[in-house]
Amino acid sequence: MSGVSQPLARLITELSKLPGVGGKTAQRLAFHILSMSDEDALSIADAITAAKRELKYCSVCGNLTDVDPCAICADASRDDSVYCVVESPKDVVAIERMKEYQGRYHVLHGVIAPMSGVGPEDLNLESLIVRLSGNDAAREVIVATNPNIEGEATAMYIARLIKPAGIKVTRIAHGVPIGGDLEYTDDVTLAKAIEGRREL
Amino acid sequence: MSGVSQPLARLITELSKLPGVGGKTAQRLAFHILSMSDEDALSIADAITAAKRELKYCSVCGNLTDVDPCAICADASRDDSVYCVVESPKDVVAIERMKEYQGRYHVLHGVIAPMSGVGPEDLNLESLIVRLSGNDAAREVIVATNPNIEGEATAMYIARLIKPAGIKVTRIAHGVPIGGDLEYTDDVTLAKAIEGRREL
Repeated sequence: MSGVSQPLARLITELSKLPGVGGKTAQRLAFHILSMSDEDALSIADAITAAKRELKYCSVCGNLTDVDPCAICADASRDDSVYCVVESPKDVVAIERMKEYQGRYHVLHGVIAPMSGVGPEDLNLESLIVRLSGNDAAREVIVATNPNIEGEATAMYIARLIKPAGIKVTRIAHGVPIGGDLEYTDDVTLAKAIEGRREL
Repeated sequence: MSGVSQPLARLITELSKLPGVGGKTAQRLAFHILSMSDEDALSIADAITAAKRELKYCSVCGNLTDVDPCAICADASRDDSVYCVVESPKDVVAIERMKEYQGRYHVLHGVIAPMSGVGPEDLNLESLIVRLSGNDAAREVIVATNPNIEGEATAMYIARLIKPAGIKVTRIAHGVPIGGDLEYTDDVTLAKAIEGRREL
């Protein structure tokens, strides 16, 4: 790009590798970073470096953590009878945010997706079986994979895998989101909402 | 945030300092960065550090540059008779992008804004006068500040400052943007477009 010196051009190129950041946004971010104090700008760079260096997957549940086992696995006050199975560490953050769930987690790092060549053996599933078989208190596995074809298929697979061990396998409810509008809810969700109706 | 380890929380906090990046976007960017290869992620951090370290303002025109004078000022093939005055280095990038302008630039680093306590003495204006008085070839100064109150006031100020030296001062045209729609053009822009009409 003419009129742009090399370090600036490089910063714009690097920022545009981020999801949802196109050329114009990358340029806006780059100029903003340059207008920040040295301390603030270098703090962003340092946070990226530190996160990449310090974060690993928990050897127990597969969540992102800087200590192993992670804070949730190490927390003795959590309920050992319930396991919530999720696709990725993002989902742990989402569920922890609501501050209602007190059980354990297990992160699959993916879902079964035959079209992309991802089978059950590619997921962090073996360690779930090991965890469950080593824990007599285990009573329920909540499968909280995303509500799409792969997520449902993975949920079915996990149910078939674990049920024989006498542990209850449940699936999170699908339906109309709170604050949502029936009029704008898609047909499949609406059908799920009616199918999953509960007596008041 | 519970469920989020400290390096991740810090990365999210740092990213949310960027303009237009809220908590959710920062979280999405952070997880994306963590999913990148070490090399790619550290390359972003390094680009920020390098840009902050290497970029300075050109001592001649005030543009952002890693060499002084900047590539545009040092380019002997550019037209020494025209100066384009802009508010910030971003504007240089925008004008260079169209690849039509062949003159010099001068970056003000702001506009006159009495409400914010910014007066002419706070702008990079003195060096413009020095440049013009030292250049007998100087024929025209195009004021390309933004089309708002401060930008117009600054343009007026510069015109009054420079005209006595016998140098023409022009203002970029205001009007309906190409690809725009008369129906959706605001009144002020439309008035400017009619005021600035040209014979075909």
